[in-house]
Order: sequence, then structure tokens, then C-alpha cells
Amino acid sequence: MRVTAVETHDVRARTSLTLAGSDAAHADPDYSAAYVVLRTDGDIEGHGFTFTIGRANDLCLAAVNALKHHVVGMDLDEITGDMAAWWRRLTSDSQLRWLGPEKGVIHLATAAIVNAVWDLWAKRAGKPVWQLIADMTPAQLVSCIDFRYITDAISPDEALDMLRALGLSRDSRITELRRDGYPAYVTSVGWLGYPEEKVRELCRAAVADGWRSFKTKVGISIESDVRRCEVMREELGDRVSLMADANQVWDVAEAIEWVRFLRPFDLRWIEEPTSPDDVLGHAAIRRAIAPTGVATGEHCANRVIFKQLLQAQAIDYVQVDACRTGGLNEVLAVLLMAAKFGVPVCPHAGGIGLCEYVQHISIADYICISGSLDDRTTEYADHLHEHFVHPAVIKDGRYVVPEAPGYSAEIRAESLDSLSFPGGSEWR
Amino acid sequence: MRVTAVETHDVRARTSLTLAGSDAAHADPDYSAAYVVLRTDGDIEGHGFTFTIGRANDLCLAAVNALKHHVVGMDLDEITGDMAAWWRRLTSDSQLRWLGPEKGVIHLATAAIVNAVWDLWAKRAGKPVWQLIADMTPAQLVSCIDFRYITDAISPDEALDMLRALGLSRDSRITELRRDGYPAYVTSVGWLGYPEEKVRELCRAAVADGWRSFKTKVGISIESDVRRCEVMREELGDRVSLMADANQVWDVAEAIEWVRFLRPFDLRWIEEPTSPDDVLGHAAIRRAIAPTGVATGEHCANRVIFKQLLQAQAIDYVQVDACRTGGLNEVLAVLLMAAKFGVPVCPHAGGIGLCEYVQHISIADYICISGSLDDRTTEYADHLHEHFVHPAVIKDGRYVVPEAPGYSAEIRAESLDSLSFPGGSEWR
Repeated sequence: MRVTAVETHDVRARTSLTLAGSDAAHADPDYSAAYVVLRTDGDIEGHGFTFTIGRANDLCLAAVNALKHHVVGMDLDEITGDMAAWWRRLTSDSQLRWLGPEKGVIHLATAAIVNAVWDLWAKRAGKPVWQLIADMTPAQLVSCIDFRYITDAISPDEALDMLRALGLSRDSRITELRRDGYPAYVTSVGWLGYPEEKVRELCRAAVADGWRSFKTKVGISIESDVRRCEVMREELGDRVSLMADANQVWDVAEAIEWVRFLRPFDLRWIEEPTSPDDVLGHAAIRRAIAPTGVATGEHCANRVIFKQLLQAQAIDYVQVDACRTGGLNEVLAVLLMAAKFGVPVCPHAGGIGLCEYVQHISIADYICISGSLDDRTTEYADHLHEHFVHPAVIKDGRYVVPEAPGYSAEIRAESLDSLSFPGGSEWR
Repeated sequence: MRVTAVETHDVRARTSLTLAGSDAAHADPDYSAAYVVLRTDGDIEGHGFTFTIGRANDLCLAAVNALKHHVVGMDLDEITGDMAAWWRRLTSDSQLRWLGPEKGVIHLATAAIVNAVWDLWAKRAGKPVWQLIADMTPAQLVSCIDFRYITDAISPDEALDMLRALGLSRDSRITELRRDGYPAYVTSVGWLGYPEEKVRELCRAAVADGWRSFKTKVGISIESDVRRCEVMREELGDRVSLMADANQVWDVAEAIEWVRFLRPFDLRWIEEPTSPDDVLGHAAIRRAIAPTGVATGEHCANRVIFKQLLQAQAIDYVQVDACRTGGLNEVLAVLLMAAKFGVPVCPHAGGIGLCEYVQHISIADYICISGSLDDRTTEYADHLHEHFVHPAVIKDGRYVVPEAPGYSAEIRAESLDSLSFPGGSEWR
């Protein structure tokens, strides 16, 4: 099956109207997807996207168009036969790598294309992406990963050994997840723009729905942050997990001081306390605020930054994003490194479609890579799922294992129309 | 004086035809500038650009257009009156920061705009940019810098103390530089695509021109790298400085092993031995290969990466780029941190127009910030200077101090026409 064309769509939701998604760094988030359809000469298509915000979508779509010659005309087997080599070509384009390398716009666009290829591959195999991965031999899985720049943390041989060690117990974990789902937490009760009464109502509704793990946004002022945590604990009690997300607002010393004021609320983690590039800063914060954990990842540019966060013992939770790094291939590299260093992966989600993606990541992590659910929980936000052909489903605060073939990335035709920017009905 | 419009130009030189600029990561470099003209209601304009390669220019120009509302309509005094605050707004655009933050395409585009503002500011003052900086009070200079995320390495008060300590001896350094120029080294003798005989000829010509410091490209194979270094040492002798640039081709252990083979050539530094994001990797390489120095910077995304390279004692030379970080304001932050940590800044240059920019950076560093020429040398490549209204001038292997008002960034009108992509005569 050959890829004949890459079609792009500018998909934007007007979430800024309701302040869903608002946090200390994003006052007016219009959740958007730079959406990619891989047309083929067969009877299926590949669907993928990268998540962005509003005007950022223009640039990601332009970057997809700049990269698409790496996939148009390729046979799917040529790509998947040596996927690490294909991924290396995509990320090493000799005229585009100056824009990164492997970071920012060009890497977000890479993810849209790469994830669409995984969707196509899984659809052809008639499997959800997590199962496509779970059914690979260790050698096949390792062959998807470009180990460049991470061999000082993990070698292909070490990865093979780790994967082989888990192979025998694989089926029992699949059975377990199909029965129980994958543990999750909910973010959409605590957006920064929401008034207190709305937060209270949403907390009560979430508890009634079976949620036991919650996150709130912080970072405006110590007084307001303390108040937000008080409100959450009042509604939720002391027996649920509570996390807080600062969205990069603090310098290192400021983070350490600020988190001390939040100590009474027994936070499981503080998320993005400072710049996502600051490995040594996160390590200093982590040493100072234990036992509160440190989490970051949604803005970590690539596997090299994650490698260092692990080497420096800088974080307690790896919050890899499905689109920030260069698509699923690089996510697999991060999962392997995290497993080797014994740090749980709790992927970032929310936005539009990120929950649909990350359920596959977390499920594959448990089945093949880490083999553990200890201290794991995957983000969920209750927005925009209605636009997907196969939306993520939550039951009792856990992701239900997706069974439809593909990467759950396909947006409904009606939604592609209505969310189309600037012509769709949402924007007219 | 008010900025009334931001005009953009797609400027590309067909340097790939001659393999000038070729290295281990860039086989077909068409040196390009995403070029910006700030139109004003006065009688002067601001000129700035960001350097990219070929097709990458499209995306940088699109990003300039996405950011330009932060400067159009602004009075120059509004911007320069609190430049750190303006810079923070530009780099924190709530819909665009998802694309970085502060890295890649969006940060390169930020640099084009920011550098054009400095050009305009200096022209209005009737001074070259280095002198605009040198004539500032310590408080004025510090007010240009956003210290966010670097206060654990340097505080505004520390910066003020450092600047004040150098103030009294400032004039003698200006006199010295006007007399002697600023020390430089030459890269354009050793591009990877050049055959041996061409390298020999260029070395002889450069020695005759007064050059005493040289760089070669490496990273293809140990045999060919050893041969390249042999050829350079044969032509140049043992009394000149020789550096080698690997352009990110190695993993950490590979870099350490490879550089051992180059030990006989007494390299002053190995440049970009591995991923520019790998602070801890550079530190490991540096420990292993001393006394050969480690240099990096042209691909370091921002001040947060530089901060960590300094904190981790990972590099011997800071090769800050004039466009990679968000323009001159962030470069000043890097210069201050480097001075505090006692590490020399040897800016990256070459490309198109980077030599024109960095001469101002190095001169300002000596006059106001580090106060030292010890172990300093600024890159020079002998390409494309003819396109500039005020090209960088080299005499006896040193930059001659530029005296024309502005940031030396203005491209000649004829060149703007001929290099215009795709319509210019160079491309037809």
C-alpha cells in the first residue's frame, strides 16, 4: 500500500470562550489540531495530528507540508520495514533540521505525520495501535526506535533484554486491562479560569462518576493557589490523589518556596514548576520539595531532554506528550528509558485528541515495556471527545481499552467541517 | 518613532552549488535569511534577519508574520523603555508559546524581529549596536534582559555589580579594539565537501592573509577526519590554533572515542560533538577528552540550555548564535552568565550575515561584560559579505570594529532582488 498524498486540515475549537484549558501560561486556549490524512492507493487512510493552540496551527500545517515529501510516494512496507531509518531521515532533513533539531514546530509536525503512519499501519493490521505494538517481537519494537543520542542511557541490546523479560507475562496484563481499564486522573475540574463554585460542582460530579485522582492549576498567586487547593480538598477529602500544575511560571528558587505553601494539601506532584528545558533546575526543585513529587514532560522537546531528566534524577513522573516528541517512535524510546530508570510514565493529555492517543501509549507501556501500574495514572480532560470517530471512553476513573483498529485519531467528517478554520460553522 | 509595518523577504543564496557551508549534518546548504524590514513613520528603517537554510526559510517567514503584531503600531520608545517586558510578551504569546516555548522556528523568528528593533534603535542613536550597548548605564543594559529562568545562575543585582566593575576601564578597551580589531578564526577553508587540494590552497591563502586560527569540519569517518587534520597541520604548522567541528554526529561514548584519534593534532576544541540539547553528555565528553576543549552553542535553543551548560561545567567555549536565541536581548543574558562562570564566548558565525551580527556581540562582550580577550576568538567565514551595505571587514585575522550606525544587518537592494526566492536572478 502506497501513500499517494498528504492532506492537511486546520481544525480549531473555540475553547477560549469557556476558558476550558486555561492555565498560568495560556489565557485564551483555542484547542487545535494540525490534522493530517494520508491518502493511499488502498482502501484505508492514515489519520494523525499534532495538538496546538489557535494561531500556532498555521505554522504546524506549513511544517507538515514542508516535510510531506518524506512520506508521499512511499510504500507502507518501505517505511515500517526499517522505521527507525525512515524516522531519522524525516528528523534529519538537511534543510529543515536547522529549525530544530528535533524540537518545536518542525518536531510537532513530524509527530502528525509519524502518528498518521502508525494509524495507517495499525488499520492495515486490523488492530488498535497498542496491540500492534504488543504483538511485535522485541526486535521489531526496537527496530522502530532511533537510539541516536541516547545510547549512554539505554542500548538496543538492553532494550531487547527488558522487552524479552516481560514477554511471557504479556497476555495476563492484556486480560487485566481489558477487565479493569487503565488508571486515570482528571484535569478538567480545575482550569485556572473557572470560578470557585464551578470547580466545586465539577469536583462533586467527578467523584460521583468514580474519579479518585484530580489535578488543579496553580501559579497565579500563593493566596489564590492555596484557596484552590483548599476548595479541592474540601470537596474531595483526603483520600484521593491531588496534583497541581504550575505551567512553567516559576524560577527555581521561587518554585521551591511556593510549593512549601502548598505542603498542607499533600500534593502527589507539582507539574511543570519551571522551564521545561531546565533539567538541573528540576533536579534542584525535586531535592528541595520531597516528598512532593516533581512531574514534567508535555513541553519536553525530545528524547535527549527526557534522557537527562532521568539521568539527573530530576523528576518523579514522566509526562511524555504524544505529539511534542516526534511521534510514537520517539515516545517508545522515552518509555524504554523511563522503565530502565524505574520512573513511572504518566502521559500528558487533554487538548484535542491527546486522550485518544495516550491511552495507547499507557496501555502499551504496561503490557510490553514497564510491566507495572505502580504509581501510574494517565491524564484525562473531558473536552472535545465528541469530535472523534472512536473517542476515548472512561469508566470508573479508568480508560477503557480501545479496540478499534488504528490510533483513535480520526476526526468525524461533520467535525472536520464545523471546526475547520476559518470557514467552519464554529468560526463563522 | 512608530513602527508602521513589518515587511518580509525570502532571501536565499545558492551556496549548495559550491558546497560552501557543507558539513556532517548539512549536505546541501543554501544559506538563507528570513529578512525583516521595520517600516516606520520616521526617516529610518530597522533591518534584521534570522539565518536559516533553504526551505526552512518559508517557515521562519511565516513565524515572523505570526509574531509581527507585537511590534506593528508600537513606538520605539515604548519598546526600548522596558525592553525586557516587551521581549517577554513576544516570547510568551499565549497561542504561540506552545510551539516552543522559546525554541525552534518561533524563537528564530523572534530573533529576526528583535534584531531589527536593535538595528532601528542604534540607527536612531546614530551608533553601531556595540556602541549603543557600551554607552548604556549598567541599569539600562540590565533592563533589556528577561532574567526569567536564570535567576539561579545570575541575578539582576549580580549583573549590575559585574557591569559597574568594568565601567571605569571601558574607554581603554574601546581604544584598543579600534586599533587592533577583535580576534577571529576562519572556517571557510575546511568545509566538508571541499577536496583536499582546495583545502590546501585555501589554507595557504588564509595564512598569507594573516589568519592564525582555523577550523575544519569532521565527522564522516575516522580515517577521513584524521586525513583532514593532517592536511591542515601540514599546511598550517603547529603554531596556529586548529579547531574541529563535528556538527552533532556522535553519541556520547562515540565522541569520546573519536576525539582520541584526533589527539595528535592538538585541537583547541571539538565543536558540537553530540546533540546540542545534551548538557550532561557534553559534561561527560569534556571530562573524558581534556585538555581538548568542548565547544557548543549554535544550536542551543535558549538561555536555559546555556545556563545548564555553564552550571554543569560542560563546555570550555560558549558559541552563542545571534539568531538561535531570541535575538540580542537573550544573547546579552548568555554573555553575562558566561562572564560570571568565567567561560569565554566565541560566537558562532558564517551562514549569511552572521559575521555582520556577531562582531557587535563580541565587541560589546569585551567592552562591557567580560572585559577579557583571553582565549576568545570569533568565527568568520568568507562568504556572502558582498550582499551587505556594511559588510564585516577582516584585517590580519581580526574583525575591524564597525562604525556605521545599526546592527550591520542591512542587505543591499540589488542583492535583495537577486537573492529573492524564487523570483530573483540567482534562482531563475
